[in-house]
Amino acid sequence: MAEIGPNTRLRVSPYYEATVKDGVTAFSPYNRMLMPVSYGDPDAEYERLMNAASQWDVAVQRQVEIRGSDAARLVQIVSVRDLSSISVNQGMYIPMCDHRGVLINDPVVLKLAEEHFWLSIADNNVLMWVRAIASERGLRVDINEPEVSPMAVQGPKAEDVVAAIFGDWVREIRFFWFADAEIDGIPLILARSGYSTQGGFEFYLMDGARGVDLWNIVREAGLPWGIGPGYPYPTERIEGGLLSFGGDTDDLTNPFEVRLGKYVDLDLDDDVIGIKALRAINSEGATRQLLGVVLDNQPRHPGHPVWYEVHKDGSKVGHMTNGVWSFRRRTMIGFVLVSTDVHVGDRVEVLRNGKRDAGTICDLPFPK
Amino acid sequence: MAEIGPNTRLRVSPYYEATVKDGVTAFSPYNRMLMPVSYGDPDAEYERLMNAASQWDVAVQRQVEIRGSDAARLVQIVSVRDLSSISVNQGMYIPMCDHRGVLINDPVVLKLAEEHFWLSIADNNVLMWVRAIASERGLRVDINEPEVSPMAVQGPKAEDVVAAIFGDWVREIRFFWFADAEIDGIPLILARSGYSTQGGFEFYLMDGARGVDLWNIVREAGLPWGIGPGYPYPTERIEGGLLSFGGDTDDLTNPFEVRLGKYVDLDLDDDVIGIKALRAINSEGATRQLLGVVLDNQPRHPGHPVWYEVHKDGSKVGHMTNGVWSFRRRTMIGFVLVSTDVHVGDRVEVLRNGKRDAGTICDLPFPK
Repeated sequence: MAEIGPNTRLRVSPYYEATVKDGVTAFSPYNRMLMPVSYGDPDAEYERLMNAASQWDVAVQRQVEIRGSDAARLVQIVSVRDLSSISVNQGMYIPMCDHRGVLINDPVVLKLAEEHFWLSIADNNVLMWVRAIASERGLRVDINEPEVSPMAVQGPKAEDVVAAIFGDWVREIRFFWFADAEIDGIPLILARSGYSTQGGFEFYLMDGARGVDLWNIVREAGLPWGIGPGYPYPTERIEGGLLSFGGDTDDLTNPFEVRLGKYVDLDLDDDVIGIKALRAINSEGATRQLLGVVLDNQPRHPGHPVWYEVHKDGSKVGHMTNGVWSFRRRTMIGFVLVSTDVHVGDRVEVLRNGKRDAGTICDLPFPK
Repeated sequence: MAEIGPNTRLRVSPYYEATVKDGVTAFSPYNRMLMPVSYGDPDAEYERLMNAASQWDVAVQRQVEIRGSDAARLVQIVSVRDLSSISVNQGMYIPMCDHRGVLINDPVVLKLAEEHFWLSIADNNVLMWVRAIASERGLRVDINEPEVSPMAVQGPKAEDVVAAIFGDWVREIRFFWFADAEIDGIPLILARSGYSTQGGFEFYLMDGARGVDLWNIVREAGLPWGIGPGYPYPTERIEGGLLSFGGDTDDLTNPFEVRLGKYVDLDLDDDVIGIKALRAINSEGATRQLLGVVLDNQPRHPGHPVWYEVHKDGSKVGHMTNGVWSFRRRTMIGFVLVSTDVHVGDRVEVLRNGKRDAGTICDLPFPK
């Protein structure tokens, strides 16, 4: 490990000072910004997320704002999921592909008004991509990155925490829907969403100068429920089967390979980017698939900084794309992106640092 | 400061193990990869670059490879500099703009063959951009990121080091030209280029498995000339007037604002992206300009993690985009991106951490 800090190519989150005060010890860069990924006590951070409430600086989840008379058309052109049914105040998870049908992001699209959308993005320059497509096709839209920075509260007590701040009406917000909200004069959009399977909310802060204030309001309101600082916790999202774009995907990954086929609508118009390629891939059948692996009694280690090869019967069948300590299973687990010849229950070997770690393939999400 | 290390969204350079062995203490992410930015002794690192030879892991400078019958056409479409005169084995520095005329990268394009180019890029997803344009325009090209990872040797003794490895023929390579080379079975392209004004070479390593071997060959060959590990050194590149794309530019910066007007050919065809917008900007005149500032007797500090406001006569006139210790002037210096109402010799104030640092505007490169 070595040091990292903010620099002019690595922006500071509005919550940065609050996370430093809360003892952040490690960052990962994401969308040219620093995301906290440790506060020094991983067991407590996992425990809070699973049994209480965890507070995350996820300002790195930037918004690409699309406004104008062609906004809805452009959003559909860059999404391989049919968006014709989306309502104002609703979010939808969408795979975005390039012309080859390869995943280039998997944002949540938020419909703020008939001609006003946000793409709440994973790590990649979607702003530039969407501008390229809009300009090449001559669409009437304005595209910008607004000063909007999400903070998440996740965990079984998240709803109680958020209701304590805003009132019980927030309990009626449906999954992936959102509403305008305000606390102490801080404008925000409150959505039932977040990168965990424990449930919770995301606060889309709309005044960057008030980040630390908002952090402190949530921190204080959450104390009775045991809130504490956290971040998208690898074990939780991996056990829950959530994909990390750019971590579990490579420059050839299509949605069918990574369990996103249900979000692909092949009968969309041909002008949707990637849809023609995806029809061809679908009729030929994907050659890779995303599954889980449980390694045999492996001691806890810091994880997998690179993809490791996976072998079956002595032959390479793909890669292990991540690796984390499972608190439940007391061994290392992870995702594998492997040939469709691999099946649940198969025995495999993962080549790591010159050793061969044996394990068993399982389905996703990981069985409880 | 907090910790950072490789992860699956942050790739490892082929030179990584060698840089760890040489004592790297800090990284900055760049093109989803870790770039060494300190070996713990900044004075020695500057000294080597200015008086001896400095060895850099700049594998983060990725290549976007464009091949095919429309390759030359596509490269021109994404470059606002006229490339009609470029020869095989020649490189050229090119601004790339979006349709608004805003800078999205400033790579060196290398012409490897008539239908074969590399864009050796700064920090941004140029691969995705070039693919978008090629697909939208139906061009016949293959576009990929090859396994090519530059290492640089910079400094007044760099040529002697490189000649000791390959022979005196390398002394004939002209600025920005390149040649095929090989050492100990390691294939590479050797270019006279690099992100400093001290001169030197870049080794485009073409076999990622041999990174540490190549590092050690250069390290050993350079010992008589005092070579040691380094990185693109902020003080040197700032004193020399070299732009850092993404560091000194924002989401509105056009080439005319940052002294790249000489690389813009306004009579290129209209299908060149951004050229129409740049003609309009040129006729209206840019409203910002890049200059230097020398602060008054300011003690050495670690630099500027964010842009700070610059004021003149009590009014905001722009930002200071970087700040470094000048070994020559024994004070802090940096670039300012300011209104065209600011002139060389003007007195300004930089607002930093609630204080006002006074200084004087100067031209770029900084006067010796």
